[in-house]
Amino acid sequence: MKQNRRNFIITSGLIGGAVLTPSLFNNAFGKNINIIGENKKMKFTFKPYTLQLKHVFTIATSSRSTTPVMLTQIEYDGIIGYGEASMPPYLGESHETASKFLSKVDLSQFNDPFKMDEILEYIDGIDEKNTAAKAAVDIALHDLVGKIIGQPWYKIWGYDKSKTPNTSFTIGIDTPEVVKQKVKEATAYNILKVKLGRETDKEMIETIRSVTDKPLVVDVNQGWTDKHFALDMIYWLNERGVKMVEQPMPKTQLDDNAWLTEKSPLPTFGDESVQRIPDVIKAHGIYSGINIKLMKCTGLREAHKMVDLAKSLNLQVMLGCMTETSCAISAISQLAPEAVWGDIDGNLLISNDPFDGIIIVDGKVTLNEAPGIGLTAVRSF
Amino acid sequence: MKQNRRNFIITSGLIGGAVLTPSLFNNAFGKNINIIGENKKMKFTFKPYTLQLKHVFTIATSSRSTTPVMLTQIEYDGIIGYGEASMPPYLGESHETASKFLSKVDLSQFNDPFKMDEILEYIDGIDEKNTAAKAAVDIALHDLVGKIIGQPWYKIWGYDKSKTPNTSFTIGIDTPEVVKQKVKEATAYNILKVKLGRETDKEMIETIRSVTDKPLVVDVNQGWTDKHFALDMIYWLNERGVKMVEQPMPKTQLDDNAWLTEKSPLPTFGDESVQRIPDVIKAHGIYSGINIKLMKCTGLREAHKMVDLAKSLNLQVMLGCMTETSCAISAISQLAPEAVWGDIDGNLLISNDPFDGIIIVDGKVTLNEAPGIGLTAVRSF
Repeated sequence: MKQNRRNFIITSGLIGGAVLTPSLFNNAFGKNINIIGENKKMKFTFKPYTLQLKHVFTIATSSRSTTPVMLTQIEYDGIIGYGEASMPPYLGESHETASKFLSKVDLSQFNDPFKMDEILEYIDGIDEKNTAAKAAVDIALHDLVGKIIGQPWYKIWGYDKSKTPNTSFTIGIDTPEVVKQKVKEATAYNILKVKLGRETDKEMIETIRSVTDKPLVVDVNQGWTDKHFALDMIYWLNERGVKMVEQPMPKTQLDDNAWLTEKSPLPTFGDESVQRIPDVIKAHGIYSGINIKLMKCTGLREAHKMVDLAKSLNLQVMLGCMTETSCAISAISQLAPEAVWGDIDGNLLISNDPFDGIIIVDGKVTLNEAPGIGLTAVRSF
Repeated sequence: MKQNRRNFIITSGLIGGAVLTPSLFNNAFGKNINIIGENKKMKFTFKPYTLQLKHVFTIATSSRSTTPVMLTQIEYDGIIGYGEASMPPYLGESHETASKFLSKVDLSQFNDPFKMDEILEYIDGIDEKNTAAKAAVDIALHDLVGKIIGQPWYKIWGYDKSKTPNTSFTIGIDTPEVVKQKVKEATAYNILKVKLGRETDKEMIETIRSVTDKPLVVDVNQGWTDKHFALDMIYWLNERGVKMVEQPMPKTQLDDNAWLTEKSPLPTFGDESVQRIPDVIKAHGIYSGINIKLMKCTGLREAHKMVDLAKSLNLQVMLGCMTETSCAISAISQLAPEAVWGDIDGNLLISNDPFDGIIIVDGKVTLNEAPGIGLTAVRSF
């Protein structure tokens, strides 16, 4: 049906039926009704970048002081959407693998960025794995489409920005002196996340408890292999103000994780266990909740579906991140109103963030009104 | 973080960094960056309306020539969103029940229509059941928010409008003469849907096959109670060009439906079995797919989540309707690119449609560019 202006004005539901000039009409809608760029092309570019960490970062299996990322842009009709792949080395992606993957991305075949389903299915089909590189395209596309729409994604998704959780701030495994120092530097945060999974677990918790009584969450990163030991640890942690346990046991030990979740006084969250949509279904009955990270799940489109799927299955939602810039952090934060737990501190750990985006106010993830993924400033990079 | 104009312009990612006037800036984004109506209120109204059916409509359990509907509006900042509840009597809602429910709806407490989660949770919590009345609010809210955003929902959801299915056109149970006449009137449709579940099932199919060889889908409306009889019927139907069977057996016969689905040469779809999100999970392993209808599931927000959930569970998606106006039909059609089967013909069966919306072109559900739910014209009602 070809739509003429009269039909359109009737459709608009404007009160009173006044004849509007095009500019007034645009204002009344808060938008420009022209369908922009039907014949325009998307231009995709990417650039390697290296994040400098403020502190050497230690988890159960490695330490490091930098993180390689890939910064991406999709340009369309004079608007740029920004994206990012963060690639901590233990996940298997690198500047080399991301360059190889992203070099194959040809967005010039699409003339409409709104066809996100089609575009992101194409991206997902270019090669297996490469989930961070795929997320770098997805995030840039969301930023672009949100800017065209003129709204941030949390609003497009119908969320209430007042419902965002606190973010935890991560205290890495380190010497007691450094741990105490890090805790003192974390005064702005209401919840601390502690990396466990070593022989020093109890010492870590006692060190932190010597300087703060803030609620803690712990991330074991698959570090406990015996379910009885794990349950004993959780009871011990529960008595010391720990509120949640992330990936307590190896992801392959499904029955043990399920046993532990059933008996645990604290909720358990699958992290390494949960990459993409099929893993959410598998997590049902194994964990209390899931940790969704853009770099694991290929980006916001799949993350949003995983949030809905988790809620349908009565799984709690936690949002996580890698060390990454405010670009990917602002992107995942668009989903924050749906999360019980936020672990969205990756940008706070780096010293060379090229973006300003969502911020933490009194410990809470605080969304803004900027369209797209919520970047409020971009420095040259 | 308070956002100043300089930050915002940098954020926008405009190429070249030119200093823009506000109006140019608005045009570059295709939108007005002002956050409209933060202090404005939503005004909700509703009006009973009676649809006149072109033909007396017969399913397995009843016949009728009218359908009561409730037409709704949400007005906000000079924009009206339109909604509808369709209430065929066998589903238990009526002008009276809907009036009672909708009289309790107070949207003046909300100043931001974007908070759809919060608003629709409030609606859902007003009372149990009343799913059509709830959908009438949900649809109007989607129409409103889509108009504020300035985009149709299929675009906001990232779908490709070229991927919509054909819609089937329903041939009700009637005398052979009337059935043949209805089939002849259905030349515009590529797939016919036949209501079965009576002793005359084979006669119905043979009557239709005497005048057309178009693909058929059948809706048994729980009419077969013996699984062996049902399987025999499906084999018989399969040989006669039937492509799909909807709700073959009573929804309470879970094991029988599962047995049938496993053995059936045709896909089976749950309809009466599937109302809302938890039913999608229950349908997994019982049917090949699910039939999503706005009047059962409380509206587009839940329907969209059900689509994603079904796909995650490898269930096929079918979209259905009641006899309803182009308002609710245009709303459900926003999801059509995700559906394998469309049964979106409810507006074609009535003679007093107050709306123009999405249309059927060469048998295919054909979306338009109108923002919101895609209504292109509204007559007074």
